[in-house]
Amino acid sequence: MPNQTDRILLAADMAGTLVFAVEGAFAGGGSLDLLGVMVLAFATALGGGIVRDVLIGDIPPAALRSWRYAAVAFAGGAIYFFLHALVDDIPPNLLMVLDAAGLGLFAIAGTEKALLFKMHPFIAVLMGTVTGVGGGTIRDIFLAHVPRVLEADVYATAALAGSLLMILARKLRLPPVLAALLGGAVCFLLRVISVWQHWNLPRFR
Amino acid sequence: MPNQTDRILLAADMAGTLVFAVEGAFAGGGSLDLLGVMVLAFATALGGGIVRDVLIGDIPPAALRSWRYAAVAFAGGAIYFFLHALVDDIPPNLLMVLDAAGLGLFAIAGTEKALLFKMHPFIAVLMGTVTGVGGGTIRDIFLAHVPRVLEADVYATAALAGSLLMILARKLRLPPVLAALLGGAVCFLLRVISVWQHWNLPRFR
Amino acid sequence: MPNQTDRILLAADMAGTLVFAVEGAFAGGGSLDLLGVMVLAFATALGGGIVRDVLIGDIPPAALRSWRYAAVAFAGGAIYFFLHALVDDIPPNLLMVLDAAGLGLFAIAGTEKALLFKMHPFIAVLMGTVTGVGGGTIRDIFLAHVPRVLEADVYATAALAGSLLMILARKLRLPPVLAALLGGAVCFLLRVISVWQHWNLPRFR
Repeated sequence: MPNQTDRILLAADMAGTLVFAVEGAFAGGGSLDLLGVMVLAFATALGGGIVRDVLIGDIPPAALRSWRYAAVAFAGGAIYFFLHALVDDIPPNLLMVLDAAGLGLFAIAGTEKALLFKMHPFIAVLMGTVTGVGGGTIRDIFLAHVPRVLEADVYATAALAGSLLMILARKLRLPPVLAALLGGAVCFLLRVISVWQHWNLPRFR
Repeated sequence: MPNQTDRILLAADMAGTLVFAVEGAFAGGGSLDLLGVMVLAFATALGGGIVRDVLIGDIPPAALRSWRYAAVAFAGGAIYFFLHALVDDIPPNLLMVLDAAGLGLFAIAGTEKALLFKMHPFIAVLMGTVTGVGGGTIRDIFLAHVPRVLEADVYATAALAGSLLMILARKLRLPPVLAALLGGAVCFLLRVISVWQHWNLPRFR
Repeated sequence: MPNQTDRILLAADMAGTLVFAVEGAFAGGGSLDLLGVMVLAFATALGGGIVRDVLIGDIPPAALRSWRYAAVAFAGGAIYFFLHALVDDIPPNLLMVLDAAGLGLFAIAGTEKALLFKMHPFIAVLMGTVTGVGGGTIRDIFLAHVPRVLEADVYATAALAGSLLMILARKLRLPPVLAALLGGAVCFLLRVISVWQHWNLPRFR
């Protein structure tokens, strides 16, 4: 009997991959060919998870062990390439909210997987953050930009805070599912509220 | 009794490594010191295979399991550094043809190895492409350029097409050697003809 | 009974990590927020060792198997962020000497570890160099600079020379500890003297 929770998790993971892929394609702007758009979609959607899996020792990375993740990432790239008029009509705020949801999901999934692979909780928080922001960082390096993770806004910080809260909730013996939901929700809300309220981390000098 | 096919394959692999290394050194232009030229030669010639091997789980990567590959890559760097007058005299079209041959060889070898490590055929096509274009991508990132794989020309596309054709030929039960030769030839010809005929992929907008 | 040599080695490793982390934070200049400073400190201090460990097959990398290394790297970032007035008062020459000491230490430790993992001595020299300069290279790529390893000064060359000498000394059957001390000292001195005397490698053309 197939497990319904697993199905929901897989669906959420695929949805996050699709959102990140569309956004990655979007970031390339108007100067890329079809292959370039696909490379950016793939790197943005799957790069964070691939780096995490190499670092925790789950090799080949989950994103390369079946054709499904790559297919979803390329579907995201194709959606942007062929239907960009549609994508351009999505209100920026909706895109930001979808992205924040993907960020929360990836951060929580990455933390969970790092714990499963016996990483120290402190390192698991870092791995959750890498899962959330790694793909966008690779995309920015490809585009020869300074990665967003170095810029002054609450993005990686939201992923970090969500992962940290999830770990703390588990230490306080909350059920794992509740801890994950709590961490994901805090990451999501922190990101959305920080954009809405123009919050920033303390800057240097 | 040593196997003659293996020897031919090894010689072809070393030849591809040498061509890519000379090209990598070439890309640095006139501003690098001897060590910088060696770093670019090494990264361009061996970077794609190293990334592929880490991702499919062949660790340490083949390029680091003997001294031979690194030695050939450094020889390529040294040829350019000390004999650049000679290298500069090579007609650009000859260099392009040599590079297309190296691309076909690397794409086929990468696809073959990924299949050997039980990757899904669709992922094996991606790994063949990474093998062909990964080194050049790392070189471009080192030089703070947008990698060529994002630019609008038929380069990564040729590698992808060759890998894909090789996989399809194997699905159609052609002998593996024939499938590889077919894929490599198509990659090579697609690249050469696209430069000659100024073919490009559809661009965005 | 705890081993005193091991304790000294661990202390030296932590000291090198701290120095590299402060320098990494320093390189970001005045435009980063707290998280950006931490990312640069972490990448600069631990990136070289993490790449080496993935390549030689020690996965998860040592820097991620306990919380200690990450904590020291973040402490280095915090020192710069909160006490930058103090750090800015350190004479540049003292910083350079501390950095050269860290370079020698990382190069020797990386070579030693690669030998322990049965890499060929020639590859072990490359791994020692990667350990020494890999973190700074990742930092430069994050900042969208051409990495220092491609620039014309004696930095990676010092690491390479120290690693090479250590290997040669071992081939000549010197005791491993003496070989390591010799290699580390040569790397350190070569770096310091080259800055002092404005030495450079032969440049191209």
